[in-house]
Amino acid sequence: MQKTVGYAAYNHNSPLLPFSFERREPKPSDVRIEILFCGVCHSDIHQVRDEWGISVFPMVPGHEIIGKVTQVGSEVSEFKPGDTVGVGCMVDSCRVCPDCNDHLEQFCNNAVFTYNSPDKHSGGANYGGYSTQIVVDQDFVLHISDKLDPAAAAPLLCAGITTYSPLKHWKVGKGDKVGIVGLGGLGHMGIKFAHAFGAHVVLFTTSSGKAEDAKRLGADEVVISKNPDEMQNHLASFDFILNTVAATHDLDAYTALLKRDGTLCLVGLPDHPHPSPSVANLIFKRRNIAGSLIGGLKETQEMLDFCAEHAITSDIEIIPMQQINEAYERVLKSDVKYRFVIDLASLKEPE
Amino acid sequence: MQKTVGYAAYNHNSPLLPFSFERREPKPSDVRIEILFCGVCHSDIHQVRDEWGISVFPMVPGHEIIGKVTQVGSEVSEFKPGDTVGVGCMVDSCRVCPDCNDHLEQFCNNAVFTYNSPDKHSGGANYGGYSTQIVVDQDFVLHISDKLDPAAAAPLLCAGITTYSPLKHWKVGKGDKVGIVGLGGLGHMGIKFAHAFGAHVVLFTTSSGKAEDAKRLGADEVVISKNPDEMQNHLASFDFILNTVAATHDLDAYTALLKRDGTLCLVGLPDHPHPSPSVANLIFKRRNIAGSLIGGLKETQEMLDFCAEHAITSDIEIIPMQQINEAYERVLKSDVKYRFVIDLASLKEPE
Repeated sequence: MQKTVGYAAYNHNSPLLPFSFERREPKPSDVRIEILFCGVCHSDIHQVRDEWGISVFPMVPGHEIIGKVTQVGSEVSEFKPGDTVGVGCMVDSCRVCPDCNDHLEQFCNNAVFTYNSPDKHSGGANYGGYSTQIVVDQDFVLHISDKLDPAAAAPLLCAGITTYSPLKHWKVGKGDKVGIVGLGGLGHMGIKFAHAFGAHVVLFTTSSGKAEDAKRLGADEVVISKNPDEMQNHLASFDFILNTVAATHDLDAYTALLKRDGTLCLVGLPDHPHPSPSVANLIFKRRNIAGSLIGGLKETQEMLDFCAEHAITSDIEIIPMQQINEAYERVLKSDVKYRFVIDLASLKEPE
Repeated sequence: MQKTVGYAAYNHNSPLLPFSFERREPKPSDVRIEILFCGVCHSDIHQVRDEWGISVFPMVPGHEIIGKVTQVGSEVSEFKPGDTVGVGCMVDSCRVCPDCNDHLEQFCNNAVFTYNSPDKHSGGANYGGYSTQIVVDQDFVLHISDKLDPAAAAPLLCAGITTYSPLKHWKVGKGDKVGIVGLGGLGHMGIKFAHAFGAHVVLFTTSSGKAEDAKRLGADEVVISKNPDEMQNHLASFDFILNTVAATHDLDAYTALLKRDGTLCLVGLPDHPHPSPSVANLIFKRRNIAGSLIGGLKETQEMLDFCAEHAITSDIEIIPMQQINEAYERVLKSDVKYRFVIDLASLKEPE
């Protein structure tokens, strides 16, 4: 067992505080990873505060992990010490169900998420990336190109794949008009990917102050969603709208903007239900409302390779571990452009 | 102008009563049709009672029309006097928009519906099939095979295409597990088509008394939707569910039964919103909620030809025009197996 330090929530209303624990010795198929950077996802805050009602404490959050391989088990063929690697939202799955066979492990009923998920090795809940190291089965470890800045690549592991996967699944490309709702950690990646895929990209935001930045990120147009006239100008014109906003809001304003056969895809899980969407909006143009969840390992690697090829990373603000509680408060105020990334060097003992 | 008799609602709370009016003389592209049979659609009742708030009175309902051609304009090439023909929910559209170009006239913003829709010829609202004759542009007239019983074919023009089109659009076929929610005018056609397409068909109904009849119509299984244990047995197992129920109800019970990437398609327009559907149900299996609206002319003809080939018609109860008000009351009590069809001979003067 290897002593590991991290930051944990000890209960649903405590700040994150230092926490020491042990990682398992690598099994033959395991990779041991020294964590360099870990992104801060809004879902970390939901889990730490037990807002989904499934939290186990103490909890070490973090599922946007970039690190260096320090040790590999005897069966590991794809990784060697020194490799830069990533770990995202999952660390295991059943490997035999139709979802796993289709490389869509995120839908496996027995997917093991990276933290706060049952750990078959320890018997308890597993611990995430707000820590100095992690041990992960090689099938759930991702290659990170040296072309990518490792800190700015961390958010690709969740915010990146969460937006890349639906844009790919619904075949967004050249000639498509695509909406991205919300400019945060997910939204800013959605703009970058949709732009890279050749679509005409429209950002929907409630905040006019975000227009300039959205265009810098790749948006062709910015619509202030509170302005009915602006919204009206885009009626029935979108092929696809990726809605990254989890806060409760009116979906009809967006379904009305879809062309016939268009899809409004939700990737944010609201704490309280959205107002019931209009069935007429769906029936009269054969529109769809769908959901999407991160992406499988194969697609995540494809996304990371695409990012390396197209020089796409997240816009980030690096913090030391010790500033995590202030960072959470700023995330809740949308006061970050656009993702905090923890530099785990801040947890390591001076040499 | 040709004198025509029919039954009309004179206002939103009157019974249907006899009404005399005139049909236009056929223009070069028009077909004049002696109406033999007209189906009674639940939407006729909504419109007659102004429950959608768009009714113009007097209103002659009816959009499931079967008749005989009696006269054709000089440019009509596809029809000749004596032909058995059908007219469905539309009698015109703009002909130039992307929806029209894609043979999906039902989504044209300028589609002219068969009744209670602006009539460019008269300037008022047009009159439907509860009448002795109708004059329709040839592009909106359908061929009816002599193999089909004309009375039982009438409901194909709305109930038939409304269920056929989504099953085709979402590519239901052999190997698929398909749910049909509700056993009424639409649901009984949904069972017949899904069965004919080779799917494993499950009917969802609140009424255990309908099980035997559902199996006769082609259902492989019947699930009583009020029974949570029965529903639980089908979790995450359906490729597609066609929901024909317009009454307000919980959609989550059905989205939970869809496989990954499955679609719940709504074809009923509720008077009051359904409870807001669970976003988690959509996200965690990438499921879809969609709507569908009748079908275009090309697909309606394809459906009619499919029905002729596979001996599919509606299960009907024939009534004289004079019994329409009693029939409406019975429709509202779901007391019909499964569609009333008006025999328009009841309106013709004895020879």
